[in-house]
Amino acid sequence: MAVHYLPDPVKIVRAQGQYMYDEQGAEYIDCINNVAHGQYHTSGWQGRRESQGCELGPRVTRDCRQRSQLGDEGGPIPVGHCHPLVVQAAHEQNQVLNTNSRYLHDNIVDYAQRLSETLPEQLCVFYFLNSGSEANDLALRLARHYTGHQDVVVLDHAYHGHLSSLIDISPYKFRNLDGQKEWVHVVCTTQLNNRSAPLPDTYRGPYQKDHPNPAVAYANEVKRVVSSAQEKGRKIAAFFAESLPSVGGQIIPPAGYFSQVAEHIHRAGGVFVADEIQVGFGRIGKHFWAFQLQGKDFVPDIVTMGKSIGNGHPVACVATTQPVARAFEATGVEYFNTGMTHSASHLTCSLSLAQFGGNPVSCAVGLAVLNVLEKEQLQAHASSVGSFLMELLGQQKIKHPIIGDVRCYCPKQHSWVQESQYMTGALATPEPLSSVHTKDPSQSSYFLKLFSPPSEGASCAQHPQEAQVGAQAEGEASTLAPQAGLVS
Amino acid sequence: MAVHYLPDPVKIVRAQGQYMYDEQGAEYIDCINNVAHGQYHTSGWQGRRESQGCELGPRVTRDCRQRSQLGDEGGPIPVGHCHPLVVQAAHEQNQVLNTNSRYLHDNIVDYAQRLSETLPEQLCVFYFLNSGSEANDLALRLARHYTGHQDVVVLDHAYHGHLSSLIDISPYKFRNLDGQKEWVHVVCTTQLNNRSAPLPDTYRGPYQKDHPNPAVAYANEVKRVVSSAQEKGRKIAAFFAESLPSVGGQIIPPAGYFSQVAEHIHRAGGVFVADEIQVGFGRIGKHFWAFQLQGKDFVPDIVTMGKSIGNGHPVACVATTQPVARAFEATGVEYFNTGMTHSASHLTCSLSLAQFGGNPVSCAVGLAVLNVLEKEQLQAHASSVGSFLMELLGQQKIKHPIIGDVRCYCPKQHSWVQESQYMTGALATPEPLSSVHTKDPSQSSYFLKLFSPPSEGASCAQHPQEAQVGAQAEGEASTLAPQAGLVS
Repeated sequence: MAVHYLPDPVKIVRAQGQYMYDEQGAEYIDCINNVAHGQYHTSGWQGRRESQGCELGPRVTRDCRQRSQLGDEGGPIPVGHCHPLVVQAAHEQNQVLNTNSRYLHDNIVDYAQRLSETLPEQLCVFYFLNSGSEANDLALRLARHYTGHQDVVVLDHAYHGHLSSLIDISPYKFRNLDGQKEWVHVVCTTQLNNRSAPLPDTYRGPYQKDHPNPAVAYANEVKRVVSSAQEKGRKIAAFFAESLPSVGGQIIPPAGYFSQVAEHIHRAGGVFVADEIQVGFGRIGKHFWAFQLQGKDFVPDIVTMGKSIGNGHPVACVATTQPVARAFEATGVEYFNTGMTHSASHLTCSLSLAQFGGNPVSCAVGLAVLNVLEKEQLQAHASSVGSFLMELLGQQKIKHPIIGDVRCYCPKQHSWVQESQYMTGALATPEPLSSVHTKDPSQSSYFLKLFSPPSEGASCAQHPQEAQVGAQAEGEASTLAPQAGLVS
Repeated sequence: MAVHYLPDPVKIVRAQGQYMYDEQGAEYIDCINNVAHGQYHTSGWQGRRESQGCELGPRVTRDCRQRSQLGDEGGPIPVGHCHPLVVQAAHEQNQVLNTNSRYLHDNIVDYAQRLSETLPEQLCVFYFLNSGSEANDLALRLARHYTGHQDVVVLDHAYHGHLSSLIDISPYKFRNLDGQKEWVHVVCTTQLNNRSAPLPDTYRGPYQKDHPNPAVAYANEVKRVVSSAQEKGRKIAAFFAESLPSVGGQIIPPAGYFSQVAEHIHRAGGVFVADEIQVGFGRIGKHFWAFQLQGKDFVPDIVTMGKSIGNGHPVACVATTQPVARAFEATGVEYFNTGMTHSASHLTCSLSLAQFGGNPVSCAVGLAVLNVLEKEQLQAHASSVGSFLMELLGQQKIKHPIIGDVRCYCPKQHSWVQESQYMTGALATPEPLSSVHTKDPSQSSYFLKLFSPPSEGASCAQHPQEAQVGAQAEGEASTLAPQAGLVS
């Protein structure tokens, strides 16, 4: 599949919409490229149901036999490979000006304004950068300058980026590398020590769906971690969490959890950072941002964005409040670009901290992505496909007791599916288990078989929609890649 | 000028070659955009000498009266704004495939191969990222994993990037922010404490041009800092330095200094990191990389690249040796892409650690920049313009005793000019001083007047070549921006 799926990685040479093509001409539906593109582009996918034999070269032994219709309203988001409007926007700006961000430019101001329209009005200051990792690192700096504190509380299994500072706050990484720093406090599923508390997992955690108020119960565990840190003289700068923890297992925090956590964090003098790098930009269907699932009244102090934001172009953003930004600027920090716009309800400031962050081309690309999302109604489509998947997966769950849980968010079921992640397989939501009592997925050989090819080289590793749609392809569907093999 | 030059920042709307144009149509020679572009593009500049009245709008009161010929062989590097070959390369790849770097792709392999041809063969592993800051952060991670140590030795006034980890190793930044961490050891111009030693500045430092061996003398100061750290039980992971310290004052380390320093650092178990983000890619004329000024035998353990590498597109690279890379990979670190090529003398490995680092478009842009550098012989041209500037500035130095030093590197004088930085003015090499005895630049009002407009709004802030060429424009030339206002 991808490079880290040895021994037979795919060499992709071109792509369009949801399709990728290798050097032998074999066509794949891209179900793993979870960060840059929607897999099913509206115009290419709508109403499509076809059989196709792929050209298979000697190295590629996969069988791409059948594509099935996943929905009738188009495809997930953002906007598919090589979307012509995004490509054109980049080219037009590249021909005119692609400078570092030392000069005033309309694009950065327009882009901040457009992003601000998707967010609560308190989040009105925008810093532009080149990657989600840069965005999370800046969020850490902002939090520390604003609070004057150093420590960070994170969820277990979290991954927030590849930079030194972010490895430190990513238990998914640091447990295999340098270990836990004294300024990092992890909210764990297993209570390892008094620096840990459970992940808000109502399927497998200590407070499950039958608990009267799992949001409060899990938030109290954060409170316990904070108190324990404070007793040792530590001071909390921030709570970092993906709005839907993805590497941690596609966890859906119970509604109200973030508000409760924010109360505890604010009381300790810290700020709440919602990492929307993987889950933002309408991918959850019901809302544009996943933190909005937590209720209208919940507003993070900082939101970080990346991945989907540029449809493959390196761009990222941090949105925050005026007080947080002012504290940062009071340090005399230098930045490269700034802009300010007023509207009836919004004052929007845009700033570039990185030299190329917020350059005219990156902002043109970001604006084009937002335009396509709107024009092709891709957020609404995400809801539609989510409902469709929930229905099919629900049928599979009834049929196969080994499927312990199916987690989606779509309007009908009041649960969510982060579609394109779902479709990566690796981040699939069906929960295998070997025992309904222990919910232990470690021996789920039947489950793996269910979603795996019958024999090596005989089925399509990148056609997991067959696995997801399931019934008609059982036993011949795609490989669910091991979760540990996917970094984001 | 740029955004941080209040109260009248420039709004640039288009650019071509060395020229930028504001929203009023006024034309500027871009002498500040030091990171992305050569200021004087060959085809646009050659043999040009013209008078031009600029269209000045009500907000823009600058006078762009005269452009003077700076050389007869074209212009500095990399390749000028909106170079058609770079724009075309980006567009062609954007239309075909711009995915994250999870898949094999020829571009990343070809690009690593081309970069390897510019470097000593030991530097054969290439990691691609999105910004120079990401590259330096990775260099820090590589150094720590390879050595098993944590501490870093840096030069005073150094700036290595905007990320948390890099602010920590940038005295230029951390002195105004969080202060010096216990794992950071600074080689200072003033001996503040036993964690500091002098910057290798043969103009203003303790060992000057009349010293019999300033390279050894300054390297011994590094040895002293290392020993002092070791006595406290600290262990050195790396020495970081720009190959030509720029924010530190356009310092030219005496030849042999890096080799001597590397010996001390290696003896302490650390690695030598050459930061070429600002000074690499042929800008010094004589060599492609500035560390090569230190002699043929000197090979850094890690080289970081950014800025010029993508001519405005966010891309960056870390080159290192196989032992350093192997130690990193032994930790089980996950990466997104990898490629390997063999040639008669080279084994080249390319890897992508960041999700978009090394994506097909970024690599296509990087390859196009290298092609233009080669095709238009821009490195040779840098030498030529360097010689020309040295000659003119030498004349100014004789005429104006307040000019204490002119630092260039060009073949004739065996000194260097980092041309386009020179032309930014802010990083200009002529050294003002109020006293030939103290070399104190703090009261150099005459010098500032010499290189400043006669009255506000009456001269061209972005025509410093008039100031640099000097004689014919004295008193009417450009503003030399304060050094502190420029970050890189």
